[in-house]
Amino acid sequence: MGDIIKTDSAYITASSSVVGSLEKAGPLGEYFDIWDEKDDTFGKDSWEKSESEMQRLALKCSMEKAVLSEGELDVIFAGDLINQCISSGYGLVDFDVPFLGIYGACSTCAEGLLLSSVFSSYTKKRCAAVTSSHNCSAERQFRFPVEYGSQRTPTSQWTVTGAASFIVSPKNDRGERVKIVDVMAGKSIDAGITDVNNMGAAMAPAAADTIQRYLTESKRDAESFDCIVTGDLGLEGSSILLEIMKKKGFDISSKHRDCGVEIYDIEKQDMHAGGSGCGCSGVTVASYFTDKLKKGEMSDILFVGTGALMNAMSLQQGNSIPGIGHLVHMVRE
Amino acid sequence: MGDIIKTDSAYITASSSVVGSLEKAGPLGEYFDIWDEKDDTFGKDSWEKSESEMQRLALKCSMEKAVLSEGELDVIFAGDLINQCISSGYGLVDFDVPFLGIYGACSTCAEGLLLSSVFSSYTKKRCAAVTSSHNCSAERQFRFPVEYGSQRTPTSQWTVTGAASFIVSPKNDRGERVKIVDVMAGKSIDAGITDVNNMGAAMAPAAADTIQRYLTESKRDAESFDCIVTGDLGLEGSSILLEIMKKKGFDISSKHRDCGVEIYDIEKQDMHAGGSGCGCSGVTVASYFTDKLKKGEMSDILFVGTGALMNAMSLQQGNSIPGIGHLVHMVRE
Repeated sequence: MGDIIKTDSAYITASSSVVGSLEKAGPLGEYFDIWDEKDDTFGKDSWEKSESEMQRLALKCSMEKAVLSEGELDVIFAGDLINQCISSGYGLVDFDVPFLGIYGACSTCAEGLLLSSVFSSYTKKRCAAVTSSHNCSAERQFRFPVEYGSQRTPTSQWTVTGAASFIVSPKNDRGERVKIVDVMAGKSIDAGITDVNNMGAAMAPAAADTIQRYLTESKRDAESFDCIVTGDLGLEGSSILLEIMKKKGFDISSKHRDCGVEIYDIEKQDMHAGGSGCGCSGVTVASYFTDKLKKGEMSDILFVGTGALMNAMSLQQGNSIPGIGHLVHMVRE
Repeated sequence: MGDIIKTDSAYITASSSVVGSLEKAGPLGEYFDIWDEKDDTFGKDSWEKSESEMQRLALKCSMEKAVLSEGELDVIFAGDLINQCISSGYGLVDFDVPFLGIYGACSTCAEGLLLSSVFSSYTKKRCAAVTSSHNCSAERQFRFPVEYGSQRTPTSQWTVTGAASFIVSPKNDRGERVKIVDVMAGKSIDAGITDVNNMGAAMAPAAADTIQRYLTESKRDAESFDCIVTGDLGLEGSSILLEIMKKKGFDISSKHRDCGVEIYDIEKQDMHAGGSGCGCSGVTVASYFTDKLKKGEMSDILFVGTGALMNAMSLQQGNSIPGIGHLVHMVRE
């Protein structure tokens, strides 16, 4: 049996994004729905609470766009980078909706869309896929509090302050017609990378594995898509991905785009290797790529959300960083 | 639309459990497959690596029981309590199988079974649901390293050292015939509990909500089941659950059992309020309750895995502890 899962009744009927000031100031700024121009706190007194608030705002915004009350939303898939996924846990606790927690590190957006698509297709229920990251909560948990002003390495990526929410509904539901036609779960792949400041290199082999499996099984070539979007490989990881793919005999260079590269003006905003975090692919896909499909400027997109399955202690204990890449195939219907 | 999801093609064809010495010495000891009689390290040099090794052993054991090679297993759902779910991430990285990370705290076993059942029913793929907890890795992360010898409060529960794996297959697959007939996702419910040493009280309202919704929608009463098994409420949480249910007009007391109460001889083993952790309901359901169904000693079980969606920092920041309870309805076919 192949790895591609056809989803016959899964439509993104609404999506929304909540971002910080740097993301708003970047090249995709005009596409985002909600932002905090003042200080990225969203009115809360801890960075963790700010991130939770962003998830709440994102889900609320997407439900409003889809004109859904709580009783009309059947299940929420959500996850994030903070220990025990509390940004989702606390951010969404007030919604009176069944809740399924997921963890895919920065691939969580794609994992949520994948699970929502299968759920929607089988159960005919309306699902929401929600995720987030916040620069300040992530940096202090995984590296150093940003207030320390630590020097960043050239390959380091900037954790995006962003939350995204997608409503995934079965056929014949109201709303926009971006269809998820098939999905493929990633395999966890350990390429031996141990540098916490080079996540792109840890995730690129997993993205390559997923893309290769998909193109092979679907018998399509990269040229037949409008684009193949990876989650957050950044500049370093993207160049590694293209290199690995070439060695495997696939040239995807003309169609490849990466959310970590798109979201910032890397040079002007001094973003080193680009953006990362669950919110990176989350808000870029929820706002920019979904918009391209809705407007008919694109009609066929492969999205491969990438994640690194480690924690701060695992590196101290001598482990390397496994990567993963989940795929979601979206078309304009 | 109701909250119960009928799963028309989901069978537990094999399940396995890996436990520590205290669990092996408890009343369910004879049911477990693998244990470390020496020191609960499973031959590894950190508690986190020991827990990962337990997940690897559990999945391997269940695949052997189901006579499955890696190529015959289509997807793994796995999660655990350690930051960023690394017990699953590292424990299962060597299996060449698509991997979907989940997070439901101690409800992870039930969440994995729920998702596997929907996946198996829709995609006809073979799924594995894997989870774990280890007393030493959990205690040092959530409370204090066990080596400190901290005093435990009367309501505190003992994190179970255990890993469980279930193979969930579509109809007509080989293996035992324990059928998952329907499932229901829990809602996250915050009852205002802030005591990290009283998880049972935090989780009981969520279990009650799920059980009430299920009994109401299915129009069945508690007496019609062999038992209603909760995840790991322990003595304190169980008594709160029965009290809440009575107030709601449901008497489940004659059918209620709790994995946190079953797994230890609470008095002799000095376990205060009982067991907890992802591994608690994991190994109890994987070995004891599944065995009862296989042998025909029971034929109809409601399993409600319970979890607390918090982390150590969230309590320091003044948050209370939301609970959740996911339901899996298993019958002997």
